[in-house]
Amino acid sequence: MNKSRIEAFSDGVLAIIITIMVLELKVPQSADGAALLALLPQLFSYMLSFVFLGIYWNNHHHLLQTLRGVNARVMWSNLNLLFWLSLVPFGTGWMGKNHTEPLPVVEYATILLICGYSYDLLRKSIITTYKNETNVKAALEKQRGKAVWSTILYALAIPAAFISTYISIALFVAVALLWITPDKEIEKVMSE
Amino acid sequence: MNKSRIEAFSDGVLAIIITIMVLELKVPQSADGAALLALLPQLFSYMLSFVFLGIYWNNHHHLLQTLRGVNARVMWSNLNLLFWLSLVPFGTGWMGKNHTEPLPVVEYATILLICGYSYDLLRKSIITTYKNETNVKAALEKQRGKAVWSTILYALAIPAAFISTYISIALFVAVALLWITPDKEIEKVMSE
Amino acid sequence: MNKSRIEAFSDGVLAIIITIMVLELKVPQSADGAALLALLPQLFSYMLSFVFLGIYWNNHHHLLQTLRGVNARVMWSNLNLLFWLSLVPFGTGWMGKNHTEPLPVVEYATILLICGYSYDLLRKSIITTYKNETNVKAALEKQRGKAVWSTILYALAIPAAFISTYISIALFVAVALLWITPDKEIEKVMSE
Amino acid sequence: MNKSRIEAFSDGVLAIIITIMVLELKVPQSADGAALLALLPQLFSYMLSFVFLGIYWNNHHHLLQTLRGVNARVMWSNLNLLFWLSLVPFGTGWMGKNHTEPLPVVEYATILLICGYSYDLLRKSIITTYKNETNVKAALEKQRGKAVWSTILYALAIPAAFISTYISIALFVAVALLWITPDKEIEKVMSE
Repeated sequence: MNKSRIEAFSDGVLAIIITIMVLELKVPQSADGAALLALLPQLFSYMLSFVFLGIYWNNHHHLLQTLRGVNARVMWSNLNLLFWLSLVPFGTGWMGKNHTEPLPVVEYATILLICGYSYDLLRKSIITTYKNETNVKAALEKQRGKAVWSTILYALAIPAAFISTYISIALFVAVALLWITPDKEIEKVMSE
Repeated sequence: MNKSRIEAFSDGVLAIIITIMVLELKVPQSADGAALLALLPQLFSYMLSFVFLGIYWNNHHHLLQTLRGVNARVMWSNLNLLFWLSLVPFGTGWMGKNHTEPLPVVEYATILLICGYSYDLLRKSIITTYKNETNVKAALEKQRGKAVWSTILYALAIPAAFISTYISIALFVAVALLWITPDKEIEKVMSE
Repeated sequence: MNKSRIEAFSDGVLAIIITIMVLELKVPQSADGAALLALLPQLFSYMLSFVFLGIYWNNHHHLLQTLRGVNARVMWSNLNLLFWLSLVPFGTGWMGKNHTEPLPVVEYATILLICGYSYDLLRKSIITTYKNETNVKAALEKQRGKAVWSTILYALAIPAAFISTYISIALFVAVALLWITPDKEIEKVMSE
Repeated sequence: MNKSRIEAFSDGVLAIIITIMVLELKVPQSADGAALLALLPQLFSYMLSFVFLGIYWNNHHHLLQTLRGVNARVMWSNLNLLFWLSLVPFGTGWMGKNHTEPLPVVEYATILLICGYSYDLLRKSIITTYKNETNVKAALEKQRGKAVWSTILYALAIPAAFISTYISIALFVAVALLWITPDKEIEKVMSE
């Protein structure tokens, strides 16, 4: 199993996930402004998930660049991450239609929480393929900080949804802002 | 982040956007000619968007060929463009079902206007990756002329929709014709 | 514009077209055998189109291998072919649901006829990129024989649908059998 | 026909099949927990098929790596496998909605049985492209053991569904566990 095929397959799946989300924006039958306004929360929800998946695509790419060999653990960690990411369109659609109801927002937070954890599992399984590249390992370890913060914010979004779902959504935006600037550490270490 | 992966991902997303539009052409239950005739405006609307996305795919390719290095700004400008292009199938479906109503036509014009603006943002972010390639920069600057004209025509299509949506649609066709011949300038400069 | 990107984009679009057809096979709500039997004509219709698109994918690949340079005419001929092929899932779904009604069968024949003609336009536009490769040109010219036969069979399928749609479907199967063995001529000439 | 394009096309189709399955998880209109609980069997059914398709993607990759030349038989064996795999989303959706009814479970078992058989046909057609690579051939022959076991378990799942569909589902999980560890034999032989 070579690295480039795992990259190509992941890219394909991510490109499809990010695009089929738009199918949840159902074309309204009527042509009035009310029909369009009713779609605004769904559009915002789509936009948020688009940013999250864009971040995953970017980080996933950096992570795979540091991969030294493909084994069963790496392959299944990667498929596990793709599986949970593939649930994002479902969560997005449900939250978009019911953004003031706690349950869909809790479910969205839960999916993102599991995605974050799955990413961490992949990161760990990739580290096991290294021999003595301690500097790459150290760069990857630094990502933990952001990961811990994301986990805390997602976890807070769950009880917050029962007070107001807008607090939860603000927490999602906060996580997105945390990750929007790509990590230059890995790129720097890799080019050395 | 290397250039070929941003190209492959963009190509994947564009291929999916251009293809899922056809899913809006719902298979009619009945087998009579009236059911097929009722789909004609939707088919025309799909055809128009197919041409627009074909033009974007082509120009996007030329633009990325001139890219010198991937940074966060380029990556997010590109994702921003893909996001707005991903709304084209929605706009196409809504206009196709209500082509004589002003609002769906205004919305279609607005999506294309934002796509055009996002393309311009990507163009500018790519120029910042150059050092002293003034001839490539000059070739890219020349694209501005067409971009300004497109913006004017899209902007005119918005008020025109309230008079007759057919004027707006004629303006969309005019923009498509403006871009249908690919720009040879960049290719010439790149091969030098 | 390089050749490999036009190949990759076409492959992406063809892979999506061939796969989204299965979305027309709607999951029945009930779990009885009647629901499954009712889907059989749709399954057969899907199978037929899968074979046609498989043939197109294969021939398209051979055709592009002989391409010497990408110009606006080649690019738009290719997009034109992809556009008509993208209507195959719609035609398949409509015929699958109404396989004894003439109109959907006529429409399916018409889509395939236009696809065949568009393929021929692409073939001609690719020939214009040659300088003095007369043997490749001769090999491509030989494909005309099959193309003419296909056109005749598709054209016959249109009036035949008004007698019995089963005659038309038999003609579609005949065209598929005609093309199912890939042309070795081009491969032989290219490897020389 | 070169090997890399058959790989790229297969990867594209597999990526789409594995992802569009999630579209069967329809976003519920209401935001209550009952709506989410009702989706759990569909989610489990999706998860199972995701694992099966992940296994196919992995094994398919190994199989194609051993390919020595593309001929019509290999191409059509591969398209035949992709066709049956493309029915997995349909089977998954139907079983997910009716997991206690025998018929959808029988149909799911039948699709997987045909997929397994189609994989075997592809394996055999690939062996015919070898000249004297007896060690690769031997490694491929060893896969037969697992294939026979899978066939037996799928075949048992069919009558079992009429006793309890949970027995059949347990048999599906057993097959998945059998294959989840990728075969190192081929990789070892190939690297020699």
